[in-house]
Amino acid sequence: MNLTLIQMAQMVGTAMESATTALLTADLALAEEVIAQDDRIDTTQHDLDAKTLDTMARQQPVASDLRILVTSLRMSADLERMGDLCHHIARTARMRYPSSAVPPELAATIQGMGNSAKAIIEKLGRVLETRDVKLALEVERDDDEMDALHRQLFMILLADDWSHGIETAIDMTLIGRYYERCADHAVSIARRVYFLVTGEYAAALNN
Amino acid sequence: MNLTLIQMAQMVGTAMESATTALLTADLALAEEVIAQDDRIDTTQHDLDAKTLDTMARQQPVASDLRILVTSLRMSADLERMGDLCHHIARTARMRYPSSAVPPELAATIQGMGNSAKAIIEKLGRVLETRDVKLALEVERDDDEMDALHRQLFMILLADDWSHGIETAIDMTLIGRYYERCADHAVSIARRVYFLVTGEYAAALNN
Repeated sequence: MNLTLIQMAQMVGTAMESATTALLTADLALAEEVIAQDDRIDTTQHDLDAKTLDTMARQQPVASDLRILVTSLRMSADLERMGDLCHHIARTARMRYPSSAVPPELAATIQGMGNSAKAIIEKLGRVLETRDVKLALEVERDDDEMDALHRQLFMILLADDWSHGIETAIDMTLIGRYYERCADHAVSIARRVYFLVTGEYAAALNN
Repeated sequence: MNLTLIQMAQMVGTAMESATTALLTADLALAEEVIAQDDRIDTTQHDLDAKTLDTMARQQPVASDLRILVTSLRMSADLERMGDLCHHIARTARMRYPSSAVPPELAATIQGMGNSAKAIIEKLGRVLETRDVKLALEVERDDDEMDALHRQLFMILLADDWSHGIETAIDMTLIGRYYERCADHAVSIARRVYFLVTGEYAAALNN
């Protein structure tokens, strides 16, 4: 795919890793960096979409090229939203600073969700680079790991010995949702690559 | 805009009203209806997008027509996602049946969020029909009411006398997020209409 989409995936991958670290270690400077980086992701999307629309208007592309251009617009929207979700995670880190938003019982689960999201986004970058449909299907399977971690998060929140109160439960519910949605968007992009290459849909995304 | 987009907004408005009622009254049949309706919204989007792509490929539209077609693709994606969020609300109603997922203290707030979302979606339908930019800006202001209700929801969850435990707090956190995101997507569509008509961006969406 377009080089800028691959760059956007790299930016989102970096933002995801930093947001998770900022959240777990209450690193305010890193949280601010992710928040600032989100503006750059938004600008990159805006510029890419303008170029894509310009190409559509000037070159009057044939059906197959048009499909690639339209898909590029959809992918850039997904990547932009993934950047927003990293921003949301970083904002929670900033809001709870100097405390960490994540209680000790949930640190491993959140780190796992962060690692899973980072790995999915990195694989997605390779899918965009190579259009490898086998790899695109792997992204979908990797998302099952994220879903399992998401269920684990709720089990810990709902355990009888939860002692961190409602506010932290609310934070962790929303944080869990941000990670899960980020992975969903990655699956959505991987499916678009799959469709572009094969002309067929991968199985339906259950969200 | 395209008649099908207006129909999609109507479908989403109906789904939103029914989902809220199903949630507040633990109406299982109504919840199932919303869940089934979401498939119809998805199919409508799929068919509309296929037609839009076909028009792009066959008619080789000039820049202004191309912009309308691309915007239609983006709006249908927003409306499809709004349908998903109604589906999520209905699914929570179904999951907690025969109890209501919403405790008495939050009934008025959730009803308010449902009413606000319904009103925003109805106004959005009129914006799509008339391309009235004044009305498009109103959608943005109406979203402030949703944000105020969202803050009220958190205040009730975080009050010292909250007695419904973590599970209900998690449910209500996610439900609040679904309403808020639904209104955000409506604002996003209203902004696209504004841009199509004026060639200028309305102020940035803070999400």
